[in-house]
Amino acid sequence: MVVSMKRQRLVVQKYGGSSVADTQRIQRVAGRVVRYKRHGDDVVVVVSALGDTTDELIRLAYEITDLPPERELDMLMATGEQVSVALLAMAIHQQGYEAISFTGAQVGIVTDGVHTKARIVDINAKRIVEELRRGKVVIVAGFQGVNLQQDITTLGRGGSDLTAVALAKTLRADVCEIYTDVDGIYTADPRIVPNARKLPSVSYEEMLEMASLGSQVMQARSIEVAKKFDIPIHVRSSFTHTEGTMIGKEVKAMEAMQVSGVSVNKQEAKVTILNVPDRPGVAAQIFNRIGLEEINVDMIIQNVSHTGRTDLSFTVVKDDLKRTLRVVEQIVQEVGAGGVMHDEDIAKVSVVGVGMRSHSGVAARMFQALAKENINIEMISTSEIKISCVIRRAQADRAARAIHDAFRLGVKRARTTTVKA
Amino acid sequence: MVVSMKRQRLVVQKYGGSSVADTQRIQRVAGRVVRYKRHGDDVVVVVSALGDTTDELIRLAYEITDLPPERELDMLMATGEQVSVALLAMAIHQQGYEAISFTGAQVGIVTDGVHTKARIVDINAKRIVEELRRGKVVIVAGFQGVNLQQDITTLGRGGSDLTAVALAKTLRADVCEIYTDVDGIYTADPRIVPNARKLPSVSYEEMLEMASLGSQVMQARSIEVAKKFDIPIHVRSSFTHTEGTMIGKEVKAMEAMQVSGVSVNKQEAKVTILNVPDRPGVAAQIFNRIGLEEINVDMIIQNVSHTGRTDLSFTVVKDDLKRTLRVVEQIVQEVGAGGVMHDEDIAKVSVVGVGMRSHSGVAARMFQALAKENINIEMISTSEIKISCVIRRAQADRAARAIHDAFRLGVKRARTTTVKA
Repeated sequence: MVVSMKRQRLVVQKYGGSSVADTQRIQRVAGRVVRYKRHGDDVVVVVSALGDTTDELIRLAYEITDLPPERELDMLMATGEQVSVALLAMAIHQQGYEAISFTGAQVGIVTDGVHTKARIVDINAKRIVEELRRGKVVIVAGFQGVNLQQDITTLGRGGSDLTAVALAKTLRADVCEIYTDVDGIYTADPRIVPNARKLPSVSYEEMLEMASLGSQVMQARSIEVAKKFDIPIHVRSSFTHTEGTMIGKEVKAMEAMQVSGVSVNKQEAKVTILNVPDRPGVAAQIFNRIGLEEINVDMIIQNVSHTGRTDLSFTVVKDDLKRTLRVVEQIVQEVGAGGVMHDEDIAKVSVVGVGMRSHSGVAARMFQALAKENINIEMISTSEIKISCVIRRAQADRAARAIHDAFRLGVKRARTTTVKA
Repeated sequence: MVVSMKRQRLVVQKYGGSSVADTQRIQRVAGRVVRYKRHGDDVVVVVSALGDTTDELIRLAYEITDLPPERELDMLMATGEQVSVALLAMAIHQQGYEAISFTGAQVGIVTDGVHTKARIVDINAKRIVEELRRGKVVIVAGFQGVNLQQDITTLGRGGSDLTAVALAKTLRADVCEIYTDVDGIYTADPRIVPNARKLPSVSYEEMLEMASLGSQVMQARSIEVAKKFDIPIHVRSSFTHTEGTMIGKEVKAMEAMQVSGVSVNKQEAKVTILNVPDRPGVAAQIFNRIGLEEINVDMIIQNVSHTGRTDLSFTVVKDDLKRTLRVVEQIVQEVGAGGVMHDEDIAKVSVVGVGMRSHSGVAARMFQALAKENINIEMISTSEIKISCVIRRAQADRAARAIHDAFRLGVKRARTTTVKA
């Protein structure tokens, strides 16, 4: 005999800045929260700052000084989320439910002392649990915490995702819902690949690769934390009620699917250092110097050398190109390289999928799809679950469609990667 | 032999919203703070929210609901001062001095739990003292504190003055400077009385009467606290470097001056309840009901009755008139009064001065000045150090000038009320 019991769920929801851009949208979010309460769920809501408030505050700071102390920047920025939580609490009250708002400090989100990109060390959720028990919706300011001296810290761009995931972990929530302006994770960008399909689920690993490939849906650090503690994430739209995409543990299914999605990144530029002396330590020297400038390098390619000299290519985000070239030109002098070239006219096309671990031939199939379209591959880089190719920018969209077709992603079929929620 | 030693002073400064209305003004305030540091003083700065930020935030709240929960209003409003303190700290850094900003919660300003008009119960200034010792300028968000549950509270309109005075008390500051957009306390409003004179000093008692008469320079509660703990206050302009007015303990001087100033208040309306049954408890009943509506009544006049019925007049702030009339109309029914009249065309002219305690004839001289100008007095009310007359609104400015002349306030002479700083 099976006895079915309806259990009260605990849901953590996170709403980004675009979901709470004005008071009308805040009221709509309140309506969504109230639906869950009416359904009997306990709800903890994490909110970002209204629209582009954070950028506005930063602009004020830079009106005053080129070098604002980071502690004071955190003090300033943290006000953005505090405004959101208070207004959302009011909107929920207005709809007849009890709600209470908290800053990061008030709910004991303790971080290390690294201002503007602090890490969460501990959450003392006592007050949240108390207020949930009283039947209240608990609303927590995202993106912020407090160090051991009670100074306000912030968690870096996308930090509200981290607040949500960390709270879901501490409170042992049944699910962590990330509300955004897209309605889930797709096999490709639907604006580029018209028959792209929304994925019902992806694994943490795939989502991590997607985040690093420039898909702006969720902050990579948050996905890492969710993976570490096995917290089911539901990425969905705050403008519709349709199901989004579940992110969870990879579960082997009967039939394997090699690839989950194709992504295109046009935000990078290629830098090539010519005629680099091929001796131990030179590459380390180069990338150390670049790292010191806090420039993130993505792909790195160095061919075997037969002449004692080699060309070294890598990609960086276009925004960092100027600074990169300044550093590289110094390095060229120091190591006695031949010169430097750069190319902004590139794109990176990637396939991601946990299935490729157990499937050979994924790379071959991708390269073949590009070859059929007469698209030349300039750089290749692979991870266990990802293959990326740098090609001409103008060919990127066509490449994505060809690869999407080659892996038959537009066709609905059984998935390898289902998610255990 | 006199040995003179330069002692390091501790100065608490408070800047209102108009002094920090934009980033340029914040930089100017920073310049002023730095002058004090350069001079060797320790400085604690209390700041209000930028310009009309607080009103803007309240507007947002009322876009969402007509009845925002007060706890959430406090959460919302407190962000205004947090923005100011962070920006001011940045501006001081920019000028080469170390500064650190704090919220009310962070410096342990503990209040009772009455949201939107909390009272300070305790200040634990440990962190402030530490940072002062490190040579930093300490910047504290005005107007806010935290209750025992760590919920954010606010201290009501003008609450930043209270923060400053309470910090000056706790830290045993040498002086508490209140920066505003006027450069001190005058014998009358210079826009009305051209030969009005800035007072070098006034007593707490006089300042209290002035605050209650509608002079918006400083919040009355803060003056009460300053008086209770004998904290010297310096009211001055943030736009000039001239000395303002010292507020302190009354010190008897050789020659007494009866009156310190003349004030005009055009913000009140008169309400008259006609033919009120003259029996015990009726007045109590009336003013209890009005009090329950949180309407503040100023002057109350009731004449002796010979007929068993009397007229009862009182004044309220014009903003409260509508609500007052609604309540009074009910009361008229309940107590069986004859009806209600109201008059918005009045003004209250007052003289204030601790000197009148020891001087008879002040009232007579004031009434005579009005009589000479053919100005009819409609209501009179007196306290130990204040006499107020209600007259026609159109005659108010002429009345103020006549009274100012009658007490020879425009002429510079010895003052009774000097202040011990």
